Amino acid sequence: MTSPQWQRRHLLSLQDLAPWEYEIILQTTASFAEVLSRPTPKVPTLQGRVVALLFFESSTRTRNSFELAAKRLSADTLNFSPGTSALNKGETILDTAKTLLAMNTNLMVIRHQYSGVPHQIAQECDRLGTGVGVINAGDGQHEHPTQALLDLFTLCSQNHAKPPSLASLRGCKIAIVGDIRHSRVARSNIYSLRAAGAEVHLAGPPTLVAKEWQALGVQVHWDLAPALQSAHFVMALRLQTERMEQHFLPSLREYHREYGLTRERLSLCQPGVKILHPGPANRGVELTSDVMDDPELSLVSQQVSNGVAVRMAVLYLLSRAKLTGS
Amino acid sequence: MTSPQWQRRHLLSLQDLAPWEYEIILQTTASFAEVLSRPTPKVPTLQGRVVALLFFESSTRTRNSFELAAKRLSADTLNFSPGTSALNKGETILDTAKTLLAMNTNLMVIRHQYSGVPHQIAQECDRLGTGVGVINAGDGQHEHPTQALLDLFTLCSQNHAKPPSLASLRGCKIAIVGDIRHSRVARSNIYSLRAAGAEVHLAGPPTLVAKEWQALGVQVHWDLAPALQSAHFVMALRLQTERMEQHFLPSLREYHREYGLTRERLSLCQPGVKILHPGPANRGVELTSDVMDDPELSLVSQQVSNGVAVRMAVLYLLSRAKLTGS
Amino acid sequence: MTSPQWQRRHLLSLQDLAPWEYEIILQTTASFAEVLSRPTPKVPTLQGRVVALLFFESSTRTRNSFELAAKRLSADTLNFSPGTSALNKGETILDTAKTLLAMNTNLMVIRHQYSGVPHQIAQECDRLGTGVGVINAGDGQHEHPTQALLDLFTLCSQNHAKPPSLASLRGCKIAIVGDIRHSRVARSNIYSLRAAGAEVHLAGPPTLVAKEWQALGVQVHWDLAPALQSAHFVMALRLQTERMEQHFLPSLREYHREYGLTRERLSLCQPGVKILHPGPANRGVELTSDVMDDPELSLVSQQVSNGVAVRMAVLYLLSRAKLTGS
Repeated sequence: MTSPQWQRRHLLSLQDLAPWEYEIILQTTASFAEVLSRPTPKVPTLQGRVVALLFFESSTRTRNSFELAAKRLSADTLNFSPGTSALNKGETILDTAKTLLAMNTNLMVIRHQYSGVPHQIAQECDRLGTGVGVINAGDGQHEHPTQALLDLFTLCSQNHAKPPSLASLRGCKIAIVGDIRHSRVARSNIYSLRAAGAEVHLAGPPTLVAKEWQALGVQVHWDLAPALQSAHFVMALRLQTERMEQHFLPSLREYHREYGLTRERLSLCQPGVKILHPGPANRGVELTSDVMDDPELSLVSQQVSNGVAVRMAVLYLLSRAKLTGS
Repeated sequence: MTSPQWQRRHLLSLQDLAPWEYEIILQTTASFAEVLSRPTPKVPTLQGRVVALLFFESSTRTRNSFELAAKRLSADTLNFSPGTSALNKGETILDTAKTLLAMNTNLMVIRHQYSGVPHQIAQECDRLGTGVGVINAGDGQHEHPTQALLDLFTLCSQNHAKPPSLASLRGCKIAIVGDIRHSRVARSNIYSLRAAGAEVHLAGPPTLVAKEWQALGVQVHWDLAPALQSAHFVMALRLQTERMEQHFLPSLREYHREYGLTRERLSLCQPGVKILHPGPANRGVELTSDVMDDPELSLVSQQVSNGVAVRMAVLYLLSRAKLTGS
Repeated sequence: MTSPQWQRRHLLSLQDLAPWEYEIILQTTASFAEVLSRPTPKVPTLQGRVVALLFFESSTRTRNSFELAAKRLSADTLNFSPGTSALNKGETILDTAKTLLAMNTNLMVIRHQYSGVPHQIAQECDRLGTGVGVINAGDGQHEHPTQALLDLFTLCSQNHAKPPSLASLRGCKIAIVGDIRHSRVARSNIYSLRAAGAEVHLAGPPTLVAKEWQALGVQVHWDLAPALQSAHFVMALRLQTERMEQHFLPSLREYHREYGLTRERLSLCQPGVKILHPGPANRGVELTSDVMDDPELSLVSQQVSNGVAVRMAVLYLLSRAKLTGS
């Protein structure tokens, strides 16, 4: 019996990712995490390849994380951001992407404010027979697969199994707290955590967490307590302050009073509970500084570190899919 | 008899480029196009050299194309754009350039909204005895030499001669359609196509194509049909939509009705006619999507691909001129 | 007797730098200046290391100089600038820095409009036990250490001693002219020049040069003549034109009439006097073009060239401190 091989050329969504695919990603991430711990944390794997970073929305951590992952793999990077782009000149996104394709870009990492843009570009890449891989680095309120994968790797690494495996999350209770409605991270997280067999609880105000999410196999709470009760992990989502102006919330202060993660509230959880946050965090809103900065509680820095390794893994796997055809 | 050697240190204009110089560029581009087709499309030619990209105007394709060309040659790049520049602080362009010179920049790629800026900087480089090469990446409405060279290479590659040669365009009819008046690409194209002995026809509305262009050895038409009649190649120019506000055109719709390239109109051309566009294109204005996306008709993607190879050739040739003196 | 070894992990200020530390920097800079004179001016010293450039204020020369220094040492660079940053999203500067830390950044180069930001980030790096080195690339009106170090290297190189040494400035008269009040460069210069035993004279209008500066062991003049009298070197500071609106100066014209460096005025100095300017210069304000462009008088280009070497030295020394612990 041989283990199945990675086949996908694109990473657009986690919705239909199979458990064995998650396992390949976790194992590959673990091996790149080992690379990153070496004195010279760099490998020639993607030497001569071009990774284009198309960020139509601003981003520090995701763009830098992908750029660093590409450089650690010895790839060359092309940066594309709206401010310096031909989009100012009325070119369609698809034509911009085609320009990068014609320059022999091998992998495209795309963030866009509209859901579906990475899919559309991936379809075009396939239609043209380019063999180029597309990674969704966050599209609208839809998905942000690599964020969920780095969260998954971080969670699965907690029991020190080598390599980390989905099995370690089976039956774990994981609470996701905050603005589910507008979060592309939440949706991707739900897919991966459900695939691992975790018990997922969402909590937030009714304006931001609809009961309809239960269709994805999760439980929805409008109170924080039942979500935190005996939870092994709590994932806080970023609250975009624009939501106030859009009348989803009365005030940040009120949000924090009801849903902010404090040391006291976390005492409801399992002893040894760990907190995640995709960043950038609003201290004193989603969680207290006290919680965020406690290395016994917070996995925030590990999430960022693992982000580079998981993105190396994804770039590597998709580029191999390209070589062997699909 | 030995073949002449490349001597120029700068590429500012195609106006006085000799046919043998075009041939060297075409041959060198062909050899870099071969490099780009390898599994690891990278050579150490400019290892340790610094290519500074000074783009005072926004650009996706030209800047990325030069940056990628530099990286494929293993050069290091420095990016300079107005938003993050000392120009905000009142420094002259020449002093900005001198700063980059003092950092031992080897090649400077310059785009600027005013005609003549690259020339001015090149003169200063020579006056200071720096040995630095300057490439005009588009200056005002003057010239855009590397765009015309990639067009030339694309055209000369159509008959599959190896290496591509100017001779293949002798007597060819080539129509250039659109906003000639504001196009730096058109002027550079006319110089190179005339050097190749092609028959060049310009077409566009009287406000955008003056009869005076005939002084450059081309024919001017205010109707599209005689320009397309039996043409081997048609080059559409980008129509900047700002031209409407400036009253050069009544409307985009009217422009398209008179000068837009449609499949029907292209039936006037030679069978097997090919279309070029420097991008970014306004679909439905300069040409229909139908035409632009037809791989039998459109050379747009090949233009972009060849752009990287031609820029590698230019960077390489100018850097050699530097080494052997001038 | 063995020579002392470099210990510092951060370069935040020159205030407490010891003469032997300056000497190590000068010697190391000299050896990197030699590297930069080679046909392939690149060394593998920082291969696999990551240098993050956090420029919260715009800058051409300093950012490019650091970026080039990092690339000459074969480091990878991460660029972070406010326009594309999470700061738009309300993240604190410290959390942004921590994100870069978690990505295994090895060195952070920070420019910020508020004094003390680099110190704050350095403290956090130490508190977290990261071993990361922080370089102050200009903080508010406080310090700009690498600018003063490149000035120092430029001054000490004038007598062609090999390697350049502080000793060459002992007893030299050096005038610093202009907007001392708002200059982070002036303060760093005063520390380094005083450490070298130079006689430092400040000159400028009373609104921009307070007598209190004398506490730093320098002489203050509100007239230019006594400062220039028999000076070996004159350092002009940049006059930010915003100062007019803030009523520090009646007009640029008046400033130039009183404090502008002209060939005539410089005749008061020692024969062979040399002029420095940190750039970007306002020609016709701080100094005439005539003076700035005279290679017999002006060291401006040498300052920029030496800037890359001195930054290579600082990146190298701080990264070594990291390896040996502190």
